[in-house]
Amino acid sequence: MRTLYHHPLCPFSRLVRVVLGEKKLEFEARIEKFWEARPEFVALNPSSEVPVLVEDNGVVLADAIAIAEYLNEIHRELPLLPADPALRAEARRLVGWFCHKFYNEVTDNLVGQKVFRRLGSHHSEPDSTRIRLAFSLIRAHLDYIGWLTERRSWLAGAAFSLADISAAVQLSCLDFIGDVPWDEHPAAKDWYARVKSRPSFRPLLADHLPGLPPPRHYADLDF
Amino acid sequence: MRTLYHHPLCPFSRLVRVVLGEKKLEFEARIEKFWEARPEFVALNPSSEVPVLVEDNGVVLADAIAIAEYLNEIHRELPLLPADPALRAEARRLVGWFCHKFYNEVTDNLVGQKVFRRLGSHHSEPDSTRIRLAFSLIRAHLDYIGWLTERRSWLAGAAFSLADISAAVQLSCLDFIGDVPWDEHPAAKDWYARVKSRPSFRPLLADHLPGLPPPRHYADLDF
Repeated sequence: MRTLYHHPLCPFSRLVRVVLGEKKLEFEARIEKFWEARPEFVALNPSSEVPVLVEDNGVVLADAIAIAEYLNEIHRELPLLPADPALRAEARRLVGWFCHKFYNEVTDNLVGQKVFRRLGSHHSEPDSTRIRLAFSLIRAHLDYIGWLTERRSWLAGAAFSLADISAAVQLSCLDFIGDVPWDEHPAAKDWYARVKSRPSFRPLLADHLPGLPPPRHYADLDF
Repeated sequence: MRTLYHHPLCPFSRLVRVVLGEKKLEFEARIEKFWEARPEFVALNPSSEVPVLVEDNGVVLADAIAIAEYLNEIHRELPLLPADPALRAEARRLVGWFCHKFYNEVTDNLVGQKVFRRLGSHHSEPDSTRIRLAFSLIRAHLDYIGWLTERRSWLAGAAFSLADISAAVQLSCLDFIGDVPWDEHPAAKDWYARVKSRPSFRPLLADHLPGLPPPRHYADLDF
């Protein structure tokens, strides 16, 4: 059986879980405490980061975008990138935006500080400057999502794509800790409600972490 | 004429310059002071980041990896990713490693602190903690490059690829400010000498910035 090493609050692990769901591919999910740098896991991925996907044929894949591109190339039905090269480039631009710009500016400053900083070896207190910065920056990103969806059905164009997945998995981690100001960004909220109702997204809404219950609206499709 | 908005010490701009060079595609290069967020430039790329490529047909492309994938899809001769999907995934894993992990841990802490922090609106002094951190982390990355090239001709396998370009452009920016401890990492140095001798890399070696001359060995193929 295909095996995914992941962590429930890692947005990049979530990205691969949604891609596997969209492609209707079965997999066994194993939670990896990647910050412990377990030798057997580092042997699979020298960066000791999740996600890592081990295929039935033994191929080991790391890096969420590399895994997503691979799965999209191997399983061509239900494509997650547009066929036209310029539209594919636009989708990949947005994948980069959410996986790097949004992650560095927002997710890492909130989920990283509030959750992973405590789980890791430091056990240190969250950095309040970074948390404040993230709360100010998330608004521009939510506005941008709203701006895009007023012009397009989905973030990168007419079809649901890896761009939507990339944005939604970041927001879903933040939503798990109650940090998304949805009410002030109705267009982004409408788009997220549409992503949330996809079957591929359901397993994420059932995630739970010991001692860290999500807010009630987290799993609610009509939030 | 195809136009590239770039900055000489931006590794991601350099990545696209090398890809254009490998594909033998002509372009007009315009230096963009992206930190000034010029309205005409923000209209091309809302993140106000370089590189941005404007194709002859008016297509506007942003995000270095999206641009590189686009150019590699459109101009299929001299491919920059392996044909086999699993090997492509390995190349893309390394692209992610160098464009994000290496950039965040090393390039941003050195070039970002020493060069761009002064150019931007802050004009603030470099953060010495981040500089020390980068100097300690760069060694593991150079060791990793050495480890890979002892097992493979190029970083991702038998052929020169986007993985080599992604790593070399980060190192070339650091080399411009004299911050690569080449002598302690001979295997990485041998690999970089091979990249440096490629015609696509030559324009980068001729770069100059007012008031910031590179060290003598920067442009030397036998450094």
